[in-house]
Amino acid sequence: MVAGGWRVELGATVLKDGTQFRVWAPKSKTVNVLILSGKATGTVAMQPEGKGYYSITVPGVADGDRYLYQLDSGRTFPDPVSRYQPDGVHEPSQVVDPEQFLWSEEGWQGIPLEQYRIYEIHVGTFTVEGTFEAVIQHLDYLVELGITALEIMPVSQCPGRRNWGYDGVYHFAPQSNYGGPEGLRRLVNACHRKGLAVVLDVVYNHFGPEGCYLDDFGHYFTDKYRTPWGRAMNLDGADSDPVLEYFLGNAAYWTTEFRFDGLRLDAVDWIFDQTPKPLLRRLADEIHQHRERLGRQLYLFAENDTNDVRLINSPDKCGFGLDAQWCDNFHHALRALLTGEITGYYEDFGQFSQLQKAFEEAFVYTGEYSRYRRRRHGGPTEKHPGSQFVVFSQNHDQVGNRKCGDRLSATLPLNQLLLAAATVILSPYLPLIFMGEEYGERAPFHYFIDHTDPELVELVRKGKHEEHASGICEGDIPDPAAESTFEESVIDVASPKEGEQAVILAFYRKLFALRTALPALQVYQRDAMAVAGLPEQKVLFLR
Amino acid sequence: MVAGGWRVELGATVLKDGTQFRVWAPKSKTVNVLILSGKATGTVAMQPEGKGYYSITVPGVADGDRYLYQLDSGRTFPDPVSRYQPDGVHEPSQVVDPEQFLWSEEGWQGIPLEQYRIYEIHVGTFTVEGTFEAVIQHLDYLVELGITALEIMPVSQCPGRRNWGYDGVYHFAPQSNYGGPEGLRRLVNACHRKGLAVVLDVVYNHFGPEGCYLDDFGHYFTDKYRTPWGRAMNLDGADSDPVLEYFLGNAAYWTTEFRFDGLRLDAVDWIFDQTPKPLLRRLADEIHQHRERLGRQLYLFAENDTNDVRLINSPDKCGFGLDAQWCDNFHHALRALLTGEITGYYEDFGQFSQLQKAFEEAFVYTGEYSRYRRRRHGGPTEKHPGSQFVVFSQNHDQVGNRKCGDRLSATLPLNQLLLAAATVILSPYLPLIFMGEEYGERAPFHYFIDHTDPELVELVRKGKHEEHASGICEGDIPDPAAESTFEESVIDVASPKEGEQAVILAFYRKLFALRTALPALQVYQRDAMAVAGLPEQKVLFLR
Repeated sequence: MVAGGWRVELGATVLKDGTQFRVWAPKSKTVNVLILSGKATGTVAMQPEGKGYYSITVPGVADGDRYLYQLDSGRTFPDPVSRYQPDGVHEPSQVVDPEQFLWSEEGWQGIPLEQYRIYEIHVGTFTVEGTFEAVIQHLDYLVELGITALEIMPVSQCPGRRNWGYDGVYHFAPQSNYGGPEGLRRLVNACHRKGLAVVLDVVYNHFGPEGCYLDDFGHYFTDKYRTPWGRAMNLDGADSDPVLEYFLGNAAYWTTEFRFDGLRLDAVDWIFDQTPKPLLRRLADEIHQHRERLGRQLYLFAENDTNDVRLINSPDKCGFGLDAQWCDNFHHALRALLTGEITGYYEDFGQFSQLQKAFEEAFVYTGEYSRYRRRRHGGPTEKHPGSQFVVFSQNHDQVGNRKCGDRLSATLPLNQLLLAAATVILSPYLPLIFMGEEYGERAPFHYFIDHTDPELVELVRKGKHEEHASGICEGDIPDPAAESTFEESVIDVASPKEGEQAVILAFYRKLFALRTALPALQVYQRDAMAVAGLPEQKVLFLR
Repeated sequence: MVAGGWRVELGATVLKDGTQFRVWAPKSKTVNVLILSGKATGTVAMQPEGKGYYSITVPGVADGDRYLYQLDSGRTFPDPVSRYQPDGVHEPSQVVDPEQFLWSEEGWQGIPLEQYRIYEIHVGTFTVEGTFEAVIQHLDYLVELGITALEIMPVSQCPGRRNWGYDGVYHFAPQSNYGGPEGLRRLVNACHRKGLAVVLDVVYNHFGPEGCYLDDFGHYFTDKYRTPWGRAMNLDGADSDPVLEYFLGNAAYWTTEFRFDGLRLDAVDWIFDQTPKPLLRRLADEIHQHRERLGRQLYLFAENDTNDVRLINSPDKCGFGLDAQWCDNFHHALRALLTGEITGYYEDFGQFSQLQKAFEEAFVYTGEYSRYRRRRHGGPTEKHPGSQFVVFSQNHDQVGNRKCGDRLSATLPLNQLLLAAATVILSPYLPLIFMGEEYGERAPFHYFIDHTDPELVELVRKGKHEEHASGICEGDIPDPAAESTFEESVIDVASPKEGEQAVILAFYRKLFALRTALPALQVYQRDAMAVAGLPEQKVLFLR
């Protein structure tokens, strides 16, 4: 899959005098490629390579031409490894020549992990335009704020125009209404020119519910495991090698053809692979070899719910060797203290000593019984430095999965918002903030979808109602499928900030400046730090 | 669960003046214990302890009394932690006082792992009587053969009287028609008096399909994972702590109340636990602490299909710390060479170089592509000594899962049977032989069941037919539910052996004697051994 200088060896690859098509379709006895536009329109039979792979080079096919695959059932489908779905998940794929883009970030080598100060955005709601291009105009603002890395929620082509990104079904095709591959390359290029690293959120635990035709091609899914979002990926059963290669190739794709500096792996506890060398370990190996080869900083961040340092342990300790992981416990400990919430997973938090433990050990639950989970939870953080944990007081999940998508700014007074900011940004971990947080944006961040299948829409609506049956927010749950729900979530970073918002923004700038300027705030060795707490006064001292 | 000197703290515990009953039944708002026999017959309400546990001490209840639990539905059930089911899986449990048994094996401390020479038996077919007691008369024979450890296929109470043991539903209750707890203790005691260690095969990956009422009590099962034999155990979901404790307590139970020297953990790749400290790791921790505390040798052997040394890696390498694992690859490499079979998993074997690799590295598949599995398979054995791998040319699965349950002796000529024996017994691994193998027993070892539910019986029959659709053996598949199928599998070790059988038996004795006598045959360091092969002559040299 990834050979000869990290080319992705699936999908449509533009060559000198034509385009090579290559697809894994073991369920089909024949595969045709249907060239639908350009100089070479027509149907071409592909050659079987063995093990279910088919390939063919078609002269005359070039960047911009549209195509479909036809399986032995006669049905036609977009390319599972499509680089571009200009008209959405059900329509033809488009040939993309990555060499057409002229990068102008020469000399960019990334930034060290310890310098990551992350700003998470959802492209569709970060600007009124909702495009990659429109993000570029705000990069100076982010640099002035003190951000060093932009983290982009998933951009794999999703059904419709409005989606958080976790319903992606073409993991190589940047969302068309965000601007497709060209737009995304322009954004990454612009970030690098400003000195910003760029991290992409990628979803390797499931595929979205609409527009996924993988089952017609091959054995991508298994019934051995189940995820909350649908069938689990087949990573350790029969015919799993090509599925592994799909994801390994995807990581290589984003870090080479798009020059991303890191990937944030969504909910890795739902990636099931019981082989001695599971997908996560292979991903880390490949990305780190790539790092050596390119002489660029490249990092893998995992989102994970199990409080398990196996993720970031080195392979010689049978760890996966990922670089860092999100630390939800820090968030929960902080938020429960700030807001006094006790519903859902906040039931397990609310003690001052838990925030102290979050500062000392990152994980608050290191084996203790969790009432919310109704079982023991977590393991120790061992010797890992603070730079291997990403912390936040808000993120897309912690805001958007609330009944009314309300940010902290909707309920907390100014001084507590500033306290939350300081706790995260001055922490001995890697800080992440969620778009708009830095000035106390009041717009909610709702959950929204744009599926075309009415039954599916009903299912999502129902699911949201059940999920929030015990929510604390007043009012109806916004309809995830309504355009207005999406529009209410669009934020406005560009307008001049006044009053309280100006105060908050100035404070965030000051905090990031402090973190940059003070050597003491760049110490990540946890045993070099002493944490003392005065629980009654709710004061923590860090030395 | 296991505290205060390793008492099992569930089930019926005989005290000085009565019996304590304790059960985990979070699905029931009330629990009664129904005392059905003895001096204290009657119904007693149990006290809730919190977290779904109920307990009560009932004066006057003693060893031998029968009881049931009554849940809030009004229905009555045997004890999930019953120590004895005298009348089978659907009938009342019986109170057992382990202190009633007088052990006479004082001074027994077990044997070192390196000295394990294992003899696997199925209690029901090892003798005509089919009881624990009847095994005892053959222990001298085993000692003279050169065996040092008896391994007993699972004895948890199963539906009916005929079962391999993997359909067990009361994991603390030794099969009643084998002789129950008293009979099993007598057998272990007798083994120890003869200098034999005893290993029990235990099934922690599923429960049998009949007589399992656990779902009425608590959340023992999960839908997150699936096994080939039914629902997976809930070891990492809500309410999983008591399920873990059930199994940890079970391991403690067999090694304390029954003084087993080791446990063979069945098919651990179907034990799903994604927490940082999974069940297998906890089991190893507990058993090894127990080893220290008692000053006795105690070992955990895993059956596993993934060729993964994480099982036997130490906990500081995030391994589970088990002592040894079965090495199916050695068997497959040997058998495919001897028999030329190419169906099923033998498709992956048949090269002489694979047997050489089995001698060098234990695992033959250390990451290579497997045609049978249609994926890459396995990982390296690293530095682990040969004493951490159990090898065999036959075992209950490799014989009994064949269409006609035929042993190697059914098809191989004498010289090849002797070659198979020598290859296993002189190998740099721990040898295991299957009952009767040592004299070329000709009786098959069939798959047999004795379920009372006719639909279930039909399902099993159907399953066996599908499993063997491509079997190579002539004739009909024996009916698993027929008594004759069981009876055909009963062997005869006691009768004097003549002719070829006498030759084979003498050869096995000689091989075990050689293994005991020659220091070179007790070297397990794999890097101290050189293996050279002459593929054309099919000769291996070991130095």
